[in-house]
Amino acid sequence: MESRGKVRLGKGAEFDMIRRFIGPNIRLPPEVHIGPGDDAAVLEGGWVVSTDLAVEDVHFRRTWLSDFEIGYRAGAGALSDLAAMAATPVGVLVSMACPVDGDVDLEAVQNGVNEICKTVGAVVIGGDMSNSPGPVFIDIVALGRTSHPILRDGAEPGDEVWVTGVLGASSAALSMWHEGVEPSEELRSAFVGPVPRVEAAQSLADHRIAGAMIDLSDGLAGDVGHIAAASGVKITLEADQVPVAEAATAVLGVDRALQAALHGGEDFELCFVADSGLVDTSYLQRHLGLQVTRVGRVGEGEGVWLGNSDGSTQSLERGGFDHWGT
Amino acid sequence: MESRGKVRLGKGAEFDMIRRFIGPNIRLPPEVHIGPGDDAAVLEGGWVVSTDLAVEDVHFRRTWLSDFEIGYRAGAGALSDLAAMAATPVGVLVSMACPVDGDVDLEAVQNGVNEICKTVGAVVIGGDMSNSPGPVFIDIVALGRTSHPILRDGAEPGDEVWVTGVLGASSAALSMWHEGVEPSEELRSAFVGPVPRVEAAQSLADHRIAGAMIDLSDGLAGDVGHIAAASGVKITLEADQVPVAEAATAVLGVDRALQAALHGGEDFELCFVADSGLVDTSYLQRHLGLQVTRVGRVGEGEGVWLGNSDGSTQSLERGGFDHWGT
Repeated sequence: MESRGKVRLGKGAEFDMIRRFIGPNIRLPPEVHIGPGDDAAVLEGGWVVSTDLAVEDVHFRRTWLSDFEIGYRAGAGALSDLAAMAATPVGVLVSMACPVDGDVDLEAVQNGVNEICKTVGAVVIGGDMSNSPGPVFIDIVALGRTSHPILRDGAEPGDEVWVTGVLGASSAALSMWHEGVEPSEELRSAFVGPVPRVEAAQSLADHRIAGAMIDLSDGLAGDVGHIAAASGVKITLEADQVPVAEAATAVLGVDRALQAALHGGEDFELCFVADSGLVDTSYLQRHLGLQVTRVGRVGEGEGVWLGNSDGSTQSLERGGFDHWGT
Repeated sequence: MESRGKVRLGKGAEFDMIRRFIGPNIRLPPEVHIGPGDDAAVLEGGWVVSTDLAVEDVHFRRTWLSDFEIGYRAGAGALSDLAAMAATPVGVLVSMACPVDGDVDLEAVQNGVNEICKTVGAVVIGGDMSNSPGPVFIDIVALGRTSHPILRDGAEPGDEVWVTGVLGASSAALSMWHEGVEPSEELRSAFVGPVPRVEAAQSLADHRIAGAMIDLSDGLAGDVGHIAAASGVKITLEADQVPVAEAATAVLGVDRALQAALHGGEDFELCFVADSGLVDTSYLQRHLGLQVTRVGRVGEGEGVWLGNSDGSTQSLERGGFDHWGT
């Protein structure tokens, strides 16, 4: 595979920073097949590597999660980046800074990381630990393998846009907590125990269904925006097709629950693009146990648009730093 | 290469935690040749991966370092782990959490990381960014390649213990700052701009000189302790042979400067073990530009000991969490 030096990034403060970071004329070494700008880097030998931060009071609060859940959730987020590339997880490295005199049970955090790793066949192969004079910081490096990574830049006009599962429940749980209400167990578990869609991604890759893929960490609108930017296309989502979690609608109402699905993030489902007519939903459901929903289409142009049921469309572009100020 | 499931770790709170983390019965996947317990993990295809934390007010203070230097130093520490394995750096992933309303110049931090990467031929291939409600937190994943990693477990009774360069200057700079005195430029630059000994390590590997190796991040005593523990041997250092930096002795005096070399850490020089009589210091100096000093010997037993000039010896074992409370 040739190195790809040209990176097209979506909108948002984080991507402005990454742009500056990698410089305008990045030249990747020949051992690096995919560099910055996708869900993970791809190295010679089919290694896929990504890194994912979980910061107390940004990504989670300790009043919401047990120490075990902090580790579990941080690991799930990191492993989801491997799923987005259709890679098989192998190992993780865990860097953790915790207050030395705080009441964080490090062993419980570690057990949480170990547990989510176990579900996808990965093990902890390294890490670093430090005191923290402030919040708990966890950075998890996920390493996996694939012979055919699925990237963000494969969308073409005429393709359809699909998602796995249902969206908005994780964000609805956050809304509840912010309003001082304990979320229902269903909403809470969407936030606390997301499932990295490793098997689903591999099925979609093995059946050559997905032409481009991303995991939904920043909300459907933002993440689809990365596919649109990387592929140089326009993507139009259909408001009435987005599979909003019923439990989210029940507490937020229809409009806010749709906003949660579009902009809330951290559902860790997959969004993928497929040739028009290629996806057979009942086959995927029956043979692969995969629930997928068509949410939009790819066209000529750029950006992400929302088609409303009255036929009008609106831009969904909005910059932003993922999780900023959560 | 066979996977190595058996890990022998040195003393200290960090290693107690790593022991718990990896569990008593770790089984590495076949794609992971070296797992936790060395300077870096080694993967199929000769990939070497390590992760290294730099936390504000633990590893550095912002009054001591410019934003550029924060990035440069964090990168140097991460790349030093690759040097310890005699690996050739390829790329780094940078996870950074910074206060969103703070006055940290992210671009300067990033430029610092880019700059140190450039000196060893590596590039930034990915990362993550987040707000931080507390200190600046940087985790750098370093990825390199080697066909023959040099590990910690290759020391045998009768071997000699060697170090590159001089020790204690970085720690002396820290002492000055803690005493409210600005360190000299020489001491400051040892702390601020350490050089990962990538070329030196490769020379030692190419010439088949080093049978075991580690980089000096926790102080000579502690790091030699990791070689001793991993190799199942005793190491005795000679107090009057340790190459203490003259600039450290000038400000700390002989005794405190020796303590800085033994326990201060963050010199990022290499410590390696070689067959007795194998090292030709003048050849290494003349042909490879390498200054090396024999500091001790390997024997039967366990632990790290210091031989004093009066013929007495003392144990150098002391547990501790690296950088804890710095």
